[in-house]
Amino acid sequence: MVITRKLTLQTQGNADAHDLTRAATEAVADSGVRSGIITLFCPGSTSALTTIEFEPGAVADLRQVFDEVVPPDRYYRHNERWGDGNGHSHVRAALLGPSLCIPFVDGALTLGTWQQIVYLDFDIRPRRREIIAQIIGE
Amino acid sequence: MVITRKLTLQTQGNADAHDLTRAATEAVADSGVRSGIITLFCPGSTSALTTIEFEPGAVADLRQVFDEVVPPDRYYRHNERWGDGNGHSHVRAALLGPSLCIPFVDGALTLGTWQQIVYLDFDIRPRRREIIAQIIGE
Amino acid sequence: MVITRKLTLQTQGNADAHDLTRAATEAVADSGVRSGIITLFCPGSTSALTTIEFEPGAVADLRQVFDEVVPPDRYYRHNERWGDGNGHSHVRAALLGPSLCIPFVDGALTLGTWQQIVYLDFDIRPRRREIIAQIIGE
Repeated sequence: MVITRKLTLQTQGNADAHDLTRAATEAVADSGVRSGIITLFCPGSTSALTTIEFEPGAVADLRQVFDEVVPPDRYYRHNERWGDGNGHSHVRAALLGPSLCIPFVDGALTLGTWQQIVYLDFDIRPRRREIIAQIIGE
Repeated sequence: MVITRKLTLQTQGNADAHDLTRAATEAVADSGVRSGIITLFCPGSTSALTTIEFEPGAVADLRQVFDEVVPPDRYYRHNERWGDGNGHSHVRAALLGPSLCIPFVDGALTLGTWQQIVYLDFDIRPRRREIIAQIIGE
Repeated sequence: MVITRKLTLQTQGNADAHDLTRAATEAVADSGVRSGIITLFCPGSTSALTTIEFEPGAVADLRQVFDEVVPPDRYYRHNERWGDGNGHSHVRAALLGPSLCIPFVDGALTLGTWQQIVYLDFDIRPRRREIIAQIIGE
């Protein structure tokens, strides 16, 4: 069985972080699929997905490392193409990656107790975003 | 068909690296599934998975880059929350990512000859860990 | 249904980037599977996959960050083992990761308009490469 859903959210950009755990949990529960994987996917090249303990400190620490490794305020060749100033957003999204696969068993995601799904919008302006949530299993 | 197994291991923390290739190979063989994907998933926010040539040099080189990019001995906001000193562990795990999907065909993983599955425990103390291994296919 | 294909390409190494979007799109179309995921996987430890807006600027920016974080011209312990000088290639590939899962619906990948699949060969010499493309769905 394959069930595909879209999760929508309003983001602020600049590494704005959103916890998608509840939305993913509900997508699995609503699907009626008992066991399998949920694949979350960002259809865009300036946002990405991972897991983290979703508390403000850990999220700020992750942002800090991105600010150091891929700083916003320097030259990016991408910015010459469109002049939209989000060259760093593209590099960050490519590094973190657009997809996340999480197994579930008996209708429950196998996340750890202190582990949440986090969507990071690295773009530089507010956007309405869609994330694909696809459930495959039996 | 969906088959879910748990791989257990005892880890030492501080980027302790474990080769899960044999365990994943056996999980696929024991499943009876001929072709499909095995999804390996860390149910926790201080460890992660990738592949590497699992020899001490390459593993040490990877650790070295984490020590430089996300050093343990500096201020992390996460450490103010719990005082457990593993803020860097959370950032490292989020960067590397908790899931790994590997196709298999005719019961054999499609890994390269010099490519092994590596589990990195970034936490700072010994732990007993479980990794989810879920097989989907036919 | 599980369909496995191999994509072949000739690469130049040194973070040579290839757009696999068309090949993945065709693999999905040819499979006859309507909805599911395509898992792309690098069977080797010196190349990796992600998505990016595949234009020369963004790709150069990504390469630049790898040159800074994992520079080719310094000591890597891996190089003592084989003397092949690609220690940095292994670290880069492990960081970016060997697998990418993309959902498709009604035969179409859920990629964004400006988002392409990129294969990065971090090794240091030209190679003929195979990438696994496995389609699971219904």
